[in-house]
Amino acid sequence: MSEDRYALADQLRLPPGPVRLADLPTDAHPGLDGGKQEGVAALAALGAELAELQERMYADAYTGGSHRVLVVLQGMDTSGKGGVVEKAIGLLSPNGLRITSFKKPTDEELAHDFLWRIDRALPDPGVVGVFDRSHYEDVLVHRVHGLVDEAELERRYEAVNAWEKGLVDAGTVVVKCFLHISAETQKERLLARLDDPEKQWKFKPGDVDERQHWTDYQRAYEVALERCHTDAAPWYVVPADRKWYRNWAVARLLLDALRGMELGWPAPDYDVAEQRARLEAEGQE
Amino acid sequence: MSEDRYALADQLRLPPGPVRLADLPTDAHPGLDGGKQEGVAALAALGAELAELQERMYADAYTGGSHRVLVVLQGMDTSGKGGVVEKAIGLLSPNGLRITSFKKPTDEELAHDFLWRIDRALPDPGVVGVFDRSHYEDVLVHRVHGLVDEAELERRYEAVNAWEKGLVDAGTVVVKCFLHISAETQKERLLARLDDPEKQWKFKPGDVDERQHWTDYQRAYEVALERCHTDAAPWYVVPADRKWYRNWAVARLLLDALRGMELGWPAPDYDVAEQRARLEAEGQE
Repeated sequence: MSEDRYALADQLRLPPGPVRLADLPTDAHPGLDGGKQEGVAALAALGAELAELQERMYADAYTGGSHRVLVVLQGMDTSGKGGVVEKAIGLLSPNGLRITSFKKPTDEELAHDFLWRIDRALPDPGVVGVFDRSHYEDVLVHRVHGLVDEAELERRYEAVNAWEKGLVDAGTVVVKCFLHISAETQKERLLARLDDPEKQWKFKPGDVDERQHWTDYQRAYEVALERCHTDAAPWYVVPADRKWYRNWAVARLLLDALRGMELGWPAPDYDVAEQRARLEAEGQE
Repeated sequence: MSEDRYALADQLRLPPGPVRLADLPTDAHPGLDGGKQEGVAALAALGAELAELQERMYADAYTGGSHRVLVVLQGMDTSGKGGVVEKAIGLLSPNGLRITSFKKPTDEELAHDFLWRIDRALPDPGVVGVFDRSHYEDVLVHRVHGLVDEAELERRYEAVNAWEKGLVDAGTVVVKCFLHISAETQKERLLARLDDPEKQWKFKPGDVDERQHWTDYQRAYEVALERCHTDAAPWYVVPADRKWYRNWAVARLLLDALRGMELGWPAPDYDVAEQRARLEAEGQE
């Protein structure tokens, strides 16, 4: 069991050194034999343990603990950030869960440093936080479109590393997942949105414009992954061309994070027999 | 279909006039035949439609709509607010869901009027918001323990009604559920928490102290329900001695709220064929 336990994390963890996304698979399914049917079943099979460990962490915080988990989801358009939230994170209880979907910053947010809005979205102790996009957008979009200069980008990579280390030092496990898809998969998924009246609302003409910058985005991701791949908060590259694998893999990485806390149920800080007696004695008081 | 559609809401809606909680059942199961097995199955059967209507509301807001739903859960300790969130609200996608569990107010919150923190917890358009406890605590706890005088309580009932009407006028459906349990059920559930090492953390000796005020709390609820039962935002009294009924009933009331919006999928505001051509033309540009 303990050998298997970190096996997936080891396989998906970004290797050290220069990052070349073209060399990392988008359609592999390490750690999971079979196809869609097996993947969907494997995901469902994680549900009970995920929910129990989530509740243990919540209970731990309720009695003073400071553990939390932050799942950071990044990836190109259509890579499945929302799908992971629905299918994988959806296995958890909405109690003790905080999802934040970062959109284009508001004027108020722009008036602050880029980490300001991120910091405000952190989960409380005991809670599983999920970022659908994150502070990484500020070194991705901004780099691709030249919105800030090189010196500012450098400052941001360092600021991100310092901020994430602070989180980890305070008891947070940070699980950063890059959902890695091929350009061909994105094209298929955009076409599928156009073809389906229930999905057309998700499509914007701007998605095609952004797609023209595919190579620049891949390069921006390579730099961000490389610069912000730390011992405190490593990156995991999740092959995401197959939805069933992507969902299972993120759920499994989250499960590993929760297991790693090795939390039991908190012992009561009151006398159980005494409280029992108080309840039973009612009406005789 | 349309007759059945609002049938449960009609049955659970608080009758007009003076409220006597002792006259309202805690263990009935109107609208749902059978027992636990049927109840659990009936709840699960609502999942697909709930999730689809939730996504339609989200899509509607994404394209400019202003619909939202706010579910307010109130009830005595152990009435199952957390259980409803886990089992009923858990059928929705975490995308487009915002749960707020209101605890004892912080110093910052106390420095503002009682509705300040409530207002900040409102769901965005397109999102289903759930309050686990709410602004009603400020006319319940405060009344029972005499923390504020009668004039302030009067001001608060009025303020609540005005605030809720404002929400509704702006496109929010407010579903206020009082989870109604008997004193005997609470006693059983508190004892069950004491007996289970996985639940002992949920118990506080203060729960027994608060239970001594059972009658006062019931009275405080009667006044709050009566004073804040408005056309804009009526109260539903959900018999909650049976968990399977409670969970199903809240899910069903939420489903009715979403159905009532009669939302389709938004029509695209772009030319589908044109965008298709742009995607297909790639590499030839």
